[in-house]
Amino acid sequence: MCAEYGVPLDLEEIKPWLREEALLELNPAATLPILFTESEDAVVGIMANIHAVEDFYTPDIVGGLFPTDPLARAEMWRLVEWVLVKLNDEVTRYLVEEKIAKRDIRGATPEPSVLRAAKANLGEHVLYFNWLLASRNWLAGDDLSLADFALAAHVSTLDYMGDVDWSKIPAETRDWYSRIKSRPAFRTLLNDRVVAMPPSRGYADLDF
Amino acid sequence: MCAEYGVPLDLEEIKPWLREEALLELNPAATLPILFTESEDAVVGIMANIHAVEDFYTPDIVGGLFPTDPLARAEMWRLVEWVLVKLNDEVTRYLVEEKIAKRDIRGATPEPSVLRAAKANLGEHVLYFNWLLASRNWLAGDDLSLADFALAAHVSTLDYMGDVDWSKIPAETRDWYSRIKSRPAFRTLLNDRVVAMPPSRGYADLDF
Repeated sequence: MCAEYGVPLDLEEIKPWLREEALLELNPAATLPILFTESEDAVVGIMANIHAVEDFYTPDIVGGLFPTDPLARAEMWRLVEWVLVKLNDEVTRYLVEEKIAKRDIRGATPEPSVLRAAKANLGEHVLYFNWLLASRNWLAGDDLSLADFALAAHVSTLDYMGDVDWSKIPAETRDWYSRIKSRPAFRTLLNDRVVAMPPSRGYADLDF
Repeated sequence: MCAEYGVPLDLEEIKPWLREEALLELNPAATLPILFTESEDAVVGIMANIHAVEDFYTPDIVGGLFPTDPLARAEMWRLVEWVLVKLNDEVTRYLVEEKIAKRDIRGATPEPSVLRAAKANLGEHVLYFNWLLASRNWLAGDDLSLADFALAAHVSTLDYMGDVDWSKIPAETRDWYSRIKSRPAFRTLLNDRVVAMPPSRGYADLDF
């Protein structure tokens, strides 16, 4: 969202599962993101950050990621909530915990039954998103919106870990993700790396 | 929020855990709330509804539930997210599932270990909220905001089921809830009843 709006960011890597003292002092819920404004104020959590970036930095000229029509905006929020709550609870959270956090905390290996359940759930979510994308240009309607970035962030995370089998993903969703990947705002994100964990093959390719 | 803004509502009771066809057609995620506007459009989910009510119905004269200062608004969103995600995930969701949904679906009784865990978690949340309320007029700052209504909705639900032991709740939180309860917007809500499940003693009393 910041890259799309042309807001420069200095990124710092935080591992929330370690619950370090410095994080808990800023946010007792130990969640991310946390944004420091130019005046050093901390904006804490995903809802506060979405609104702060929109309030402080919406570009005047090109238009923002929030549709101007109220009903289109309601559809965007419905899908942002779907991704942040439902997709996260049923898919992404499990895979990140099993594959990244558990290894990081105690060198443990993932639990196969959890991976299987999360991947089966992912298949159901993809069916729904693809059904939407079969009749729409972007996830929430005719125009690119925050819903696309929310979903793309999760797809990118899952794809990094090798949990998206693109040969089985329907064409509409593949085409949508290809359009997202080719946006300048998304290119830099695709260069991020998890320490000691290379991304899956094709992760950063526009042709995947 | 609607009562506070003077928006008249016709309420319909839905049991999302039954996953009825009519609900799934409106919202495949099977979540609430769903608001129908005067033009019969459906606004789906809590995030879409908060924004729709704010966009469509903010009272011009008395001011809304969103602070005007951007940093105060960020603090409100931080706490709204805390209640909707963290408090719900760690406390309310379990108690509603165990005490209301399970009985409704298959007449099952609650699992004592789940109730114990949820109530222990509630104690930790109350400590944090009370710490905030010891130095603030309202949950997110000097003024009443949506964060107060979000928390009050959960406290009211827990209190209805008898899961709030007021003799152990610190004075600042008791005083805050008493101020919320005495608002006209909250009075009607306190008259709602779950079928075949009377509320705990003192639930609707201003002196509890």
